[in-house]
Amino acid sequence: NSKLKIFSLNSNQELAEEISEHAGIPLGKSSVTHFSDGEIQINIEESIRGYDVFIVQSTSQPVNENLMELLIMIDAVKRASARTVNVVIPYYGYARQDRKARSREPITAKLVANLLETAGATRVIVLDLHAPQIQGFFDILIDHLVAVPLLSDYFLNESGIDLENVIIVSPDHGGVTRARKMADRLKAPIAIIDKRRPRPNVAEVMNIVGNVEGKTAIIIDDIIDTAGTISIAASALIESGAKEVYACCTHPVLSGPAVQRINDSVIKELIITNSIALPEEKKSPKIKQLSVARLLAETIVRVHEQKSVSTLFD
Amino acid sequence: NSKLKIFSLNSNQELAEEISEHAGIPLGKSSVTHFSDGEIQINIEESIRGYDVFIVQSTSQPVNENLMELLIMIDAVKRASARTVNVVIPYYGYARQDRKARSREPITAKLVANLLETAGATRVIVLDLHAPQIQGFFDILIDHLVAVPLLSDYFLNESGIDLENVIIVSPDHGGVTRARKMADRLKAPIAIIDKRRPRPNVAEVMNIVGNVEGKTAIIIDDIIDTAGTISIAASALIESGAKEVYACCTHPVLSGPAVQRINDSVIKELIITNSIALPEEKKSPKIKQLSVARLLAETIVRVHEQKSVSTLFD
Ligand SMILES: Nc1ncnc2c1ncn2[C@@H]1O[C@H](COP(=O)(O)O)[C@@H](O)[C@H]1O
Ligand SMILES: Nc1ncnc2c1ncn2[C@@H]1O[C@H](COP(=O)(O)O)[C@@H](O)[C@H]1O
Repeated sequence: NSKLKIFSLNSNQELAEEISEHAGIPLGKSSVTHFSDGEIQINIEESIRGYDVFIVQSTSQPVNENLMELLIMIDAVKRASARTVNVVIPYYGYARQDRKARSREPITAKLVANLLETAGATRVIVLDLHAPQIQGFFDILIDHLVAVPLLSDYFLNESGIDLENVIIVSPDHGGVTRARKMADRLKAPIAIIDKRRPRPNVAEVMNIVGNVEGKTAIIIDDIIDTAGTISIAASALIESGAKEVYACCTHPVLSGPAVQRINDSVIKELIITNSIALPEEKKSPKIKQLSVARLLAETIVRVHEQKSVSTLFD
Repeated sequence: NSKLKIFSLNSNQELAEEISEHAGIPLGKSSVTHFSDGEIQINIEESIRGYDVFIVQSTSQPVNENLMELLIMIDAVKRASARTVNVVIPYYGYARQDRKARSREPITAKLVANLLETAGATRVIVLDLHAPQIQGFFDILIDHLVAVPLLSDYFLNESGIDLENVIIVSPDHGGVTRARKMADRLKAPIAIIDKRRPRPNVAEVMNIVGNVEGKTAIIIDDIIDTAGTISIAASALIESGAKEVYACCTHPVLSGPAVQRINDSVIKELIITNSIALPEEKKSPKIKQLSVARLLAETIVRVHEQKSVSTLFD
């Protein structure tokens, strides 16, 4: 691991430390301070001249602070003569603003891609982008990792559920491909929650496409934010005869009332990854966090050693 | 004023409204909302196709939020087919990070310039950059306005001080050019505060170059942040025989203990501009705020009408 350095910023220090352990190299030394007027100052405290540098930072809440930290760090690393400036963004914020849904809206997911490039990133490593098309927003190199194998392995090896009786559920049309991938691994059928609004200003109706009767339903999503949809979806599955409902996602945004809603819901267990750090107050006996550290560490080492990473993707 | 639109963001709405009044056109309609996960969403609520659009936003505290608001707004305006995307940044944050003061530091003032360009700004209008060299960080058009005339006019016409007996003081070597400009307008001599540290880890000594005996001293600076230097400088001036001390600056950052320090200092009155909005809790009978709205409005209208703005600069 010569000429390889991994730096952590403030969004997810625990994950960065785990990555550094798996990679077998200590985290690089840097300081991030805030002046009294709120401006961020970064200093890199060891030479990185000629190094492949990897900066680990999720653009999770506080998203704008975390993004600016990352941009400023990229600038500092670039100016310190690193050979390559690789940014590892386990959770890519603003990913849901990936198109003009209405007239005169920005496309902030594209803006962020441009900002990262402008600052000097030469490669990004991301995990489960909200839309895989966001890969094309970058002109620099991108590795897009997926968490389906990790989540699937949990259900296969650790959950203790009856694997003969499982059905994988996509909470919307956009997530069917992801549900299909998990279903393949669990050798299970799929169902889709088909939300529609019969008329404007009338509550959405959740119709379940597929037979969940007597089954253990596993809902898979990429992001769980306020947990509104997933809680209602779980109830709808039970009403349609499902025996029990598990949920899993890659990115636990869990904003606002999310944890309370999960706790109050019929969901038996929610499996998440640590792409976003879970603060103490969001921990719950119902929520189980799996680590993506080994996946990210292996990717970092392989990228540095110029080995293929494609086998990590499934 | 056909095909001209001015939009305000959240940093300094009052100033934006004043600008729109002076320019004689209502502010453009847009909404800036924050999702529960902290992401900013912007929507422009009227057509701006073919317009010269001016976005008013200081990158003052909370600097990273305000900067992201601005970048996202620029993206939205650009994609809404504006003819030109002009950003009016009365206070340009991160301006003090304009060089590598130590090894492996970023140059964030340059990064911010690049981010604005990348987002799609076609011109920036700024006021008293901490270093005029920051103009060269931009490849797009830049108009650099100065507040010395406005501040000088206050002392000439409104302050009631004896103009025969004034000395203009620069609080450091970097500010001498600014002090000289004000001195020309007030037909006054200048003095310089020559700070130096005799040995490392020994308190700074303030030596005053110039004779302030019996004079009304006016300290002029670009930014007053924590107000530490200016309070000590004012005391040093009194100790050196100055009769009274006024202070003025363009950008009232006034972070942390600043207002308390001003109130406790020997400074008789502090004159500032509204390049940064002064929240209610920072108001003080000692602090007087002048408006740059007319200056900015005139600049906007002249830029739109493709008239020279150079006469506004002195
Ligand atoms: N941070 C956010 N929180 C909640 N909704 C968002 C957020 N960002 C974007 N959206 C909205 O979510 C929708 C896109 O989500 P999706 O259809 O799942 O891709 C758009 O209508 C956006 O306005
Ligand atoms: N927001 C800030 N607050 C306080 N000091 C800063 C800030 N930004 C930069 N600096 C420091 O101020 C110095 C530059 O100020 P100056 O010498 O006046 O140009 C540098 O040493 C910076 O590290």
